[in-house]
Amino acid sequence: MLAERAYLNAGTDGPLPARSTAAARARLEHELREGRSGAVHWDGLEQLREDLRGRIAALMGASADEVALTGSATDAINLVLAGFDLAPGDEVLTTDEEHAGLLAPLAACARRTGAGIRVAPFGAVGAAVSERTRLIAVSHVSWMTGRRVALAPLRDTGLPVLLDGAQGLGAVAVDVRELGCAFYAAAGQKWLCGPDGTGALFVEGEWIDRLGMPRASYVTIVEHSDPLALEPRAGARRFDTVSPSGPALAAALAALEVLAEHGWPAVFEHAAQSADILRVSLGERLVAPGARAPLVTWRTERDPDDHVSALAERGVIVRAIPGHPWIRASVGAWNSESDLERLLAAL
Amino acid sequence: MLAERAYLNAGTDGPLPARSTAAARARLEHELREGRSGAVHWDGLEQLREDLRGRIAALMGASADEVALTGSATDAINLVLAGFDLAPGDEVLTTDEEHAGLLAPLAACARRTGAGIRVAPFGAVGAAVSERTRLIAVSHVSWMTGRRVALAPLRDTGLPVLLDGAQGLGAVAVDVRELGCAFYAAAGQKWLCGPDGTGALFVEGEWIDRLGMPRASYVTIVEHSDPLALEPRAGARRFDTVSPSGPALAAALAALEVLAEHGWPAVFEHAAQSADILRVSLGERLVAPGARAPLVTWRTERDPDDHVSALAERGVIVRAIPGHPWIRASVGAWNSESDLERLLAAL
Repeated sequence: MLAERAYLNAGTDGPLPARSTAAARARLEHELREGRSGAVHWDGLEQLREDLRGRIAALMGASADEVALTGSATDAINLVLAGFDLAPGDEVLTTDEEHAGLLAPLAACARRTGAGIRVAPFGAVGAAVSERTRLIAVSHVSWMTGRRVALAPLRDTGLPVLLDGAQGLGAVAVDVRELGCAFYAAAGQKWLCGPDGTGALFVEGEWIDRLGMPRASYVTIVEHSDPLALEPRAGARRFDTVSPSGPALAAALAALEVLAEHGWPAVFEHAAQSADILRVSLGERLVAPGARAPLVTWRTERDPDDHVSALAERGVIVRAIPGHPWIRASVGAWNSESDLERLLAAL
Repeated sequence: MLAERAYLNAGTDGPLPARSTAAARARLEHELREGRSGAVHWDGLEQLREDLRGRIAALMGASADEVALTGSATDAINLVLAGFDLAPGDEVLTTDEEHAGLLAPLAACARRTGAGIRVAPFGAVGAAVSERTRLIAVSHVSWMTGRRVALAPLRDTGLPVLLDGAQGLGAVAVDVRELGCAFYAAAGQKWLCGPDGTGALFVEGEWIDRLGMPRASYVTIVEHSDPLALEPRAGARRFDTVSPSGPALAAALAALEVLAEHGWPAVFEHAAQSADILRVSLGERLVAPGARAPLVTWRTERDPDDHVSALAERGVIVRAIPGHPWIRASVGAWNSESDLERLLAAL
């Protein structure tokens, strides 16, 4: 796929490493041949879960006890909002550069609880805090422009911050302690190059008990315990989804191994340098010249969807940003200089 | 797997049809080669979702508009409970033969809402309804004994019934109209022989709006609509999980195709006949002689876990039922007479 195309859309879905697909295939064959039953099967799944949890935790600067495996970043966000105690009169503060993956859960939460949603400019969200604000729910990195949210003013409010990290983890270095967030929702299928249906949620220690049990299953309670007693598993495991299959877990893990072998600092550095090359070349057309994440957005004078289709016909895969005359390229460690040249030539 | 073993544990996880694994592999290769981007990719996923929804709906006797695709039966149950309006003083009625997949969500719901849980004998749950009962949440088919719940007394109460169909759909003929339930939660990975991470939820028409939006994502709202306006997709699609990957959807669909080609009535009949053969042979040891589902449970005089391990060493895969000196065999259309003979010889 990468050999044939200038694939510049990891912000939607990352490229799948061949080794990740091979790992999924091997696990599929294993389950076909051996069945999905018995201690070896269950212990194997549990080991995959813990290996994946450990790798994601390390990449976030968190402990494994603070990371839940979810079905997606959106699943993680829905979970936090379901466990967060909101009432009429309360407000959740968000921004004007958020994705449906955050906005739809916020809207559903507002309808359920009667809480309000205040939308502030992405660049000045810290200034929009009111005495009604109970939670700040914003992107770590804007899916529209690649800008990073200014965390210092948010931290200064003392309010809990839920970061939508769908364009964060795997795209840029993440340290949840330094960010100072209570929650960090990550997507598995974008910059981590994993399968659809995988994601993760960091929950800062003191919030683990406070969120309660918004959902429960056999994977969220202590093994062999009485389900009605609802004895939660250690740490953020109590928020796990039951869903990821063996093949999905194996694929997610293998993708992280491939990236880690290149070294995460090198992965981030390569992406950042490629983004800088694009930004310099795009010049005046750039939407957010100061952005520092590997999402690069520029203005087009054509119909954005038509323009994106025309680029795709020339083997250059990017996406339009709805509601604006904007096109976005996502540049990852897997993109070569010739991918960038191909995009610039096609423009 | 079926050639080597007497695999009698579809009640935990079904055997994977080779064609289902091949479909997952083909979709994996497709995504590896073509990437996961562009209209063809998204339309392909949407088509897989609708094909799967349609097949599951037909198997339940429901319309596609009444079926949500979930990550598991447990996910479906958590969803219903999150949308159901319960308060302190209310009660949910359940039984003493329920699985953690129902009990853990019930316990979490009770803790969140202050509602109580009343546990009645599986065989007499209808008689335990009180004026506080707001919801009856029970198994369609008991995972412990294979008994079916008596629906007529439940229907007579006029209360909404949530059926945990993890051991129902695919094991026995299901007609949600005839059952008269408001909700039916189905597992994809058991009797439907699909991948882990798939499930479905039937929501009776009038309940679709009443459940609200317990969670939301880009797949639960109208495409290109304003996420903050939370305009739900048609019917029970508004409850879909975003999770199942292309390979998982393809595998689930292929497994249903394999079973449908044999004819569902033949699938149910073969399983029922095999279960009857086992029941007759087990005689006095049977736990629930009157059960009519393809789960057969008997008493053992040995330690059940040891006994199950000893049987596994002889290639006979069954499971123990915790808390009782019981062993359960699940017999499906894929099991031959020699599988049954092998079990009986090993006993």
